[in-house]
Amino acid sequence: MTDLKDIKAFVFDIDGVFTDGGIYAIDGDLLRKYEAKDCMATRIAYMNGFKTGIITGGISDVIAQRMVRCGFDRSDIYLGVRKKIEAFDDFCQRHGLKPEQVMYCGDDLPDIPVLKACGLGACPADAVQEVKEAADFVSEFQGGRFFVRNTVEMVMKAQNKWYLDDDEYKKIF
Amino acid sequence: MTDLKDIKAFVFDIDGVFTDGGIYAIDGDLLRKYEAKDCMATRIAYMNGFKTGIITGGISDVIAQRMVRCGFDRSDIYLGVRKKIEAFDDFCQRHGLKPEQVMYCGDDLPDIPVLKACGLGACPADAVQEVKEAADFVSEFQGGRFFVRNTVEMVMKAQNKWYLDDDEYKKIF
Amino acid sequence: MTDLKDIKAFVFDIDGVFTDGGIYAIDGDLLRKYEAKDCMATRIAYMNGFKTGIITGGISDVIAQRMVRCGFDRSDIYLGVRKKIEAFDDFCQRHGLKPEQVMYCGDDLPDIPVLKACGLGACPADAVQEVKEAADFVSEFQGGRFFVRNTVEMVMKAQNKWYLDDDEYKKIF
Amino acid sequence: MTDLKDIKAFVFDIDGVFTDGGIYAIDGDLLRKYEAKDCMATRIAYMNGFKTGIITGGISDVIAQRMVRCGFDRSDIYLGVRKKIEAFDDFCQRHGLKPEQVMYCGDDLPDIPVLKACGLGACPADAVQEVKEAADFVSEFQGGRFFVRNTVEMVMKAQNKWYLDDDEYKKIF
Repeated sequence: MTDLKDIKAFVFDIDGVFTDGGIYAIDGDLLRKYEAKDCMATRIAYMNGFKTGIITGGISDVIAQRMVRCGFDRSDIYLGVRKKIEAFDDFCQRHGLKPEQVMYCGDDLPDIPVLKACGLGACPADAVQEVKEAADFVSEFQGGRFFVRNTVEMVMKAQNKWYLDDDEYKKIF
Repeated sequence: MTDLKDIKAFVFDIDGVFTDGGIYAIDGDLLRKYEAKDCMATRIAYMNGFKTGIITGGISDVIAQRMVRCGFDRSDIYLGVRKKIEAFDDFCQRHGLKPEQVMYCGDDLPDIPVLKACGLGACPADAVQEVKEAADFVSEFQGGRFFVRNTVEMVMKAQNKWYLDDDEYKKIF
Repeated sequence: MTDLKDIKAFVFDIDGVFTDGGIYAIDGDLLRKYEAKDCMATRIAYMNGFKTGIITGGISDVIAQRMVRCGFDRSDIYLGVRKKIEAFDDFCQRHGLKPEQVMYCGDDLPDIPVLKACGLGACPADAVQEVKEAADFVSEFQGGRFFVRNTVEMVMKAQNKWYLDDDEYKKIF
Repeated sequence: MTDLKDIKAFVFDIDGVFTDGGIYAIDGDLLRKYEAKDCMATRIAYMNGFKTGIITGGISDVIAQRMVRCGFDRSDIYLGVRKKIEAFDDFCQRHGLKPEQVMYCGDDLPDIPVLKACGLGACPADAVQEVKEAADFVSEFQGGRFFVRNTVEMVMKAQNKWYLDDDEYKKIF
């Protein structure tokens, strides 16, 4: 480390440094806030061979566009879902996975059937009480703020697969 | 729960998992942030037979559009209100309710007359001091962040009515 | 207070109850977040006879439009200001006020000359260190989150002028 | 300080006083939140002779427009970067700087090579664990919320260069 008196220049990253990591995706008259570090984690998982999917009641294609940038194939993003367990079963069947081979992350009442059916049901620190009771793992991190990163890292590190291959690294923002 | 080494796939919900639950509704040059879990609660209340209303000084029809998605009939949403007690009396009369059968939730000075007139006056943890003193119930949760969920759950659980009927469950986002 | 089992209906305010009180005003490609309870305070101050002004480096007329809704005359809103002390002197002169009759609220280095010249220099809890040292009053509240309300209430209560006249109350959102 | 009873007027700054300091820059269907006090710091650094640069994976020209207002030359803003160390080397070469004369600020895995190569690698309190271990300095402040200000001030104060020249002060918002 250089003595502070000898520094002549400052260089900064943007997301997470000049900003709080939040990326807001605008869809007509709605807008949702995502976290750059969470997107990085699912992108790394995808690059390293994991299957990744989204099951949401949200109906906006902007959600899908954002998630494609975070390492999800468009065909694995289920929008406008009313019964989540049906979408989950379809995801497993299409990829030849048993439910117990899948981690599912949810935070509210409609997520409970999937949290119970999957191999690892995870929820953020600010999930509702019923979900916390149904989940296998309650993260110390909140939704939209490192919860996704925490769960993905936890699984990948247990498998010694948590690394970023520079040559495969692609722009995700 | 599956051993972490055997997980092959990750599946995520969006609202409250990949985001912090915030949904921003844009109206011309204004924008407000709502919480998905709060909307879920009022939707469940509506589906289970409770009357639900909105009384606000806000004038934007985008507020009404958002609230309709959260289980409010358009005719029960009062916009641009100056004297809230008049809107409250109208709501009670139209539904054949006595004021003491209604919970009202407010946070600032114009809400005080209704908080005193209704059966259960509730306010969030970040309400102003005068409102806290006028309210029957001061929630530990803040406005826009689980306060609505907290009050609705509290009442519905006391009546053993807090449940989500899958067949009636409709998309709310 | 009614027994929870007898509640038949739920009625809610929007700002600060269904939302966190934040109102985002969009200006072209910029957007700022305001707090409904802060706007309420300056509106009450204006209605009760206090002079109110804005001095900002910001250049957007959307700032002015928003502040007019919060109880500021358009002619008392100084935009694009480089030397704040000049705008401050102009404000005092136009209203026949001595600097010591005015409270000024600022948070960063360009505010220091005015904080020292005015009668009551106030800053939020998250102001920079140099400003905290120059201010007469360091609020426990943060900028954009009840700091404005705190300072306005403090002065008006000391003068027994903190009240909301229903007949003069106008829609501010 | 004037007695509270003698105050006749209230005057306010906007950014950081009436708002939380956040400035949201909208780019098509994306939006990022910046902090006014952080922009002030890099502007002061630029005015006082420091070289300043940006290296980001983000691709939007709105990022560049915002950073130009914060004291960065357009030619020192690297967008859409995949290998950050290459952009960093280019920045050093163009300005005749040795890597050890430069402070670099990053928060996630792609920043690690630069954090190790530069003279002072700094990261925010909410950086990922691997980055914290690679950094020379872990700030107590978070990304997007005074981290940039903290690092810039720290270096400039060590060189007795932290001051704002009124005559050179230009509008940065």
